[in-house]
Amino acid sequence: MSERIARAALSRLSEPGDTRLSSLVGQLGAVKVYDLLREEEDVAGVYTDVAARLRGLDPERELEEAAAKGIRLICPEDAEWPGCLRDLDSVEPLQGRGGAPLGLWARGLLPLDEACRSSAAVVGSRSATSYGTSVASDIAAALAGNRMAVVSGAAFGIDQAAHRGALAMKGRTVAVLACGVDRPYPSAHKNLLDYIVDVGLVVSELPPGCSPTKLRFLSRNRVIAALTQGTVVVEAAVRSGALNTANWALRLNRQVMGVPGPVTSAPSEGVHQLIRYRDAALVTKGADVLELLSPSGSFLTEEARGADRPRDQLTEREQRVLDAVPVFHGVTNDSIARTAGLPAGEVLEALERLRSKHLVENADRRWRLVRD
Amino acid sequence: MSERIARAALSRLSEPGDTRLSSLVGQLGAVKVYDLLREEEDVAGVYTDVAARLRGLDPERELEEAAAKGIRLICPEDAEWPGCLRDLDSVEPLQGRGGAPLGLWARGLLPLDEACRSSAAVVGSRSATSYGTSVASDIAAALAGNRMAVVSGAAFGIDQAAHRGALAMKGRTVAVLACGVDRPYPSAHKNLLDYIVDVGLVVSELPPGCSPTKLRFLSRNRVIAALTQGTVVVEAAVRSGALNTANWALRLNRQVMGVPGPVTSAPSEGVHQLIRYRDAALVTKGADVLELLSPSGSFLTEEARGADRPRDQLTEREQRVLDAVPVFHGVTNDSIARTAGLPAGEVLEALERLRSKHLVENADRRWRLVRD
Repeated sequence: MSERIARAALSRLSEPGDTRLSSLVGQLGAVKVYDLLREEEDVAGVYTDVAARLRGLDPERELEEAAAKGIRLICPEDAEWPGCLRDLDSVEPLQGRGGAPLGLWARGLLPLDEACRSSAAVVGSRSATSYGTSVASDIAAALAGNRMAVVSGAAFGIDQAAHRGALAMKGRTVAVLACGVDRPYPSAHKNLLDYIVDVGLVVSELPPGCSPTKLRFLSRNRVIAALTQGTVVVEAAVRSGALNTANWALRLNRQVMGVPGPVTSAPSEGVHQLIRYRDAALVTKGADVLELLSPSGSFLTEEARGADRPRDQLTEREQRVLDAVPVFHGVTNDSIARTAGLPAGEVLEALERLRSKHLVENADRRWRLVRD
Repeated sequence: MSERIARAALSRLSEPGDTRLSSLVGQLGAVKVYDLLREEEDVAGVYTDVAARLRGLDPERELEEAAAKGIRLICPEDAEWPGCLRDLDSVEPLQGRGGAPLGLWARGLLPLDEACRSSAAVVGSRSATSYGTSVASDIAAALAGNRMAVVSGAAFGIDQAAHRGALAMKGRTVAVLACGVDRPYPSAHKNLLDYIVDVGLVVSELPPGCSPTKLRFLSRNRVIAALTQGTVVVEAAVRSGALNTANWALRLNRQVMGVPGPVTSAPSEGVHQLIRYRDAALVTKGADVLELLSPSGSFLTEEARGADRPRDQLTEREQRVLDAVPVFHGVTNDSIARTAGLPAGEVLEALERLRSKHLVENADRRWRLVRD
């Protein structure tokens, strides 16, 4: 029996994120663990859990049927297995879930490792505002336009907007599901998922046919965080799966980023907490994300500042003279000197420099401002 | 001649934030410096600057006239001089301005030191949005309601909203002006300033009658930052006086805080930069500010989280059982065990516990969810 067949079997037997199983497989190999379970040996309490599911299991047939539907099982032995998933084996579980996936079932021709080499998760609330979806789409489009894959969960709201933003740029996007990759979930996203399969990748730890459960969503979030170099949370209420993904990203030492919103908007509250209490980086646009995730110095955003104006180049003393020149009625050099509190000789020199910059004008030895 | 008279004279002769003068006064005392200038001695280049303004100066009369209008000059020798202003003497100038004020002209009965003991600056754009003014008012009201004085600049927009928020709570508020305290600037804020004088304090480095200039605004901002324990920026475009105040607060090692807003809103852009690039703390409400500025542990906000629900207290394995119970048609214990991938005996025990929590119900040995 091959490692792939054993992993297909184990992924059907167990729930994703079962750290007992992933650590057993790490120690003994998938074939050995599957053999022990088939011999009804109870290793680490796993057998008693999976006994009911063992009956009638036929992983070889499952792999064939999956292949017929264009679904492959990506295993750690495969060239396209992303090395970054290994990080999941070296961090503590969160809410009882953890460990690297036993394998990832995938639909779509894009190799997974290639998709993840430069990638960011863009996640957030299902009940997003139009502000949130619009910002998520813009950020995803900017990432995709810079050859960065956008990874998300295909849910309503922010996830959908993130995938769509990437697709609009004909960029790469990866949907990580909490159910079988042959199940459109949510069903309203069937077209979206089909489109992602065409140009990107839909992956899941769960074998084809499985339905999503609360725990499977939590397990799925760790995969989203692990596959990417960083996680951007766009809107997230205080209780939100997106914050769970962010917590995984923090645990994995990935960059965590948050897009702020109005402090009066509940869907932004979780993001603000993430920035305030978890030191997430505040990002406002795709370029900020690219800067944080790209190798040092390879993508730099400039801190925005207004255009320079002639007034900006003045010395402090020239500024004082300029402040003392009236708008309407011209006044003499001495009057300006008195107002500015500067010597008359210096004021005259400054006025000449200000005239050459077209800031003041002079008529009959009286000075006034040039009006914009 | 008294120190107070000399300081009154020097505050008329010089521009605020002139570090040459503040350091001379620190070394020689105000009386000596004023004497030297009257003897036409040029100390540190100051004389040539102030010569034109020296003529006709009568500081004693000025102090009398000010007193008649209810205006006093608060000097470092006075009991109400706030010690925190000394910090300005030990930091580098910013844009050519710096140093502690020579004195502060004040209107209002509240002693300045008492007002500043627990205080925060709340500042921001003149061209604020209704979002910004509403949040600024709410924050100021929360601070004032907790006996913290709100210090601002009486400008349109955020400043006005901050003062009003404090006044609405019958709290303390201090307006720091860039012109004489007898000049309502902006003139539309005459009533606001009169009201602040009644219950709080209006102060300025500039003697009565002086008009505001660009440089005087920059100098004023350092006083706002120095008088308070921290500065909250509510909305600030990329070029904004509020950011100048925040820069002063950073320089003075005061707490700098920013209220985020939509990333699509230009008046929030400067705040987002402050959080991202200058490590300003993200705050969303008055309680956040109180927590950051109060002595350690004396004011704690709890990180908001949703209400606990019965589902939150479940173990991971109970959750798995619950996930496997259908909504409509009851199913048997064995069927649930197969779906959950757990042994039938454990599942039955878990179902009984879930029933006691009113999460599942049982009829004819078939289990289904209790619907909310």
